Amino acid sequence: MNVAVLSGGVGGARFLRGVIGVVDPGNVSIVGNVADDIEVLGLRVSPDLDSILYTLTGLADEERGWGRAGETWQALDTVDQLGGESWFRLGDRDIGLHLVRTELLRHGVPLSEATERITHALGLEAQLLPATDDPLRTFIETSEGTFPFQTWFVARGHRDEVDAVHYAGSPEAAPGPGVLEALAAADVILIAPSNPYVSIGPILAVAEIRAALEQRTVPCVAVSPLIGGRAVKGPADRMLQRLAGGTTPAHVASCYAGLIDALVIDEADAPADLGADVRSVATRTLMTDVEAARRLAAAALDAAGAPA
Amino acid sequence: MNVAVLSGGVGGARFLRGVIGVVDPGNVSIVGNVADDIEVLGLRVSPDLDSILYTLTGLADEERGWGRAGETWQALDTVDQLGGESWFRLGDRDIGLHLVRTELLRHGVPLSEATERITHALGLEAQLLPATDDPLRTFIETSEGTFPFQTWFVARGHRDEVDAVHYAGSPEAAPGPGVLEALAAADVILIAPSNPYVSIGPILAVAEIRAALEQRTVPCVAVSPLIGGRAVKGPADRMLQRLAGGTTPAHVASCYAGLIDALVIDEADAPADLGADVRSVATRTLMTDVEAARRLAAAALDAAGAPA
Repeated sequence: MNVAVLSGGVGGARFLRGVIGVVDPGNVSIVGNVADDIEVLGLRVSPDLDSILYTLTGLADEERGWGRAGETWQALDTVDQLGGESWFRLGDRDIGLHLVRTELLRHGVPLSEATERITHALGLEAQLLPATDDPLRTFIETSEGTFPFQTWFVARGHRDEVDAVHYAGSPEAAPGPGVLEALAAADVILIAPSNPYVSIGPILAVAEIRAALEQRTVPCVAVSPLIGGRAVKGPADRMLQRLAGGTTPAHVASCYAGLIDALVIDEADAPADLGADVRSVATRTLMTDVEAARRLAAAALDAAGAPA
Repeated sequence: MNVAVLSGGVGGARFLRGVIGVVDPGNVSIVGNVADDIEVLGLRVSPDLDSILYTLTGLADEERGWGRAGETWQALDTVDQLGGESWFRLGDRDIGLHLVRTELLRHGVPLSEATERITHALGLEAQLLPATDDPLRTFIETSEGTFPFQTWFVARGHRDEVDAVHYAGSPEAAPGPGVLEALAAADVILIAPSNPYVSIGPILAVAEIRAALEQRTVPCVAVSPLIGGRAVKGPADRMLQRLAGGTTPAHVASCYAGLIDALVIDEADAPADLGADVRSVATRTLMTDVEAARRLAAAALDAAGAPA
């Protein structure tokens, strides 16, 4: 069974760890968000791709919740001491990866190929595909101004309420190599419990990816990132409240209208009526550990009618 | 008393630590070699400037002899793991500095100004001036081919005998801001015990710097890098043997013909007759510790008729 998963960073990565626990990793293709990517200190950083890579290869720092285990901060401490840009937290090991990626991109290697080389070197078995090789970037519109995603999320601590989300570059963005092929080859398409606006939204802003989901011939199941109407972490609940008008399963499902056949929700949000076209499946969605992530992945596959 | 010192990296840096021990650091201007600079992993590395900076600010690793104390290697280990370019040893703290410098250069800040900002941030009191802001690079001609300096020195472990040394870009290279002013304001000009071919040579390959030394109105004293005809470290003796025909004080002095009034040599190389124009002054030149470096600096100033 081939599974394709649309995913953002940390939350998506945890779900993916469950997916590769119930499906042969070699049959899992991940379409990762790249609209959070940022150039900082001349380094091209792809936070969502890297969160996925680190989590699935066991390199992630589980306690901190992002970045690599055993990380040190000597380079950034020096940058800070020298008055350089240090607001975006880059660890030394993380910088090593960014140096390699940035050098490849500088030599004309597309992000997809750079990602393939890096994930291969670290032994990732699943296929990690950037949603696009084109410059697609999320901008956040607030009453304080419109900010690049990481400026709003990291530098401003996502405290500004969001009036709108823009995906700069989306009209021109083509799917990355292998993305449409992975969606076409999938027996099931999953949407990870990532933020619908800033993690999944940019992937769906690539017109051909959205069209592929609209025209799917296999089931597509999304997993809600909310539990009891609240985000486990991050601003998803506040964004849904403000941009979709609420935080019920129906509000989550509205982000994926026409794209999904089922929404996996937490028991705390059940029951939910999502209309004629979308079933709701309630289960425990909090991924307290790998086993819980596996159960959630299995529930999502089950909801697709494709039990693992 | 104002002192200007032409200097390469590690050996020069140790001598400079002696100089600032006997002269007010605020009155010391260092003209540093930049022809060893290299772009590696997209980072602009200035090994000689950084050796001087680290040594004079107490940040150098004295035991290893290069780089920073308390250094770690996590970024480069990751680069290596990912198949990136890892032959040039960059520590994490060192990378922090290179990230800042590279970012400044990318934004159009000249190397001299980037150096000023970085040295100021680290509290360097002496003035550290790149010999030039222009792209001046040392190439080493050997029977195995002509190599960029760091390729020959680091990657090939300077094992190939040197047939000639070229300074690419020297015809167009102008002195860096402040260099001619520092030489004009100096009461004494010193040439550090650095390699005459690959450390001091590129500085003197900047025509206006050479002219300033030729037309000097104050004493200029060089310190020989050889002890008993042998280099303390590095390939200076082999290069002198092959390119100047020997390793006596006269051979060292021949590298600075018309530019110096005295050569400080080691007692092991005394006595030496350097002709009518250049006096030789013998002392112990091995810089075993800071005090030995201070004594050597004092001897050099004394040889210039300007006792500290």
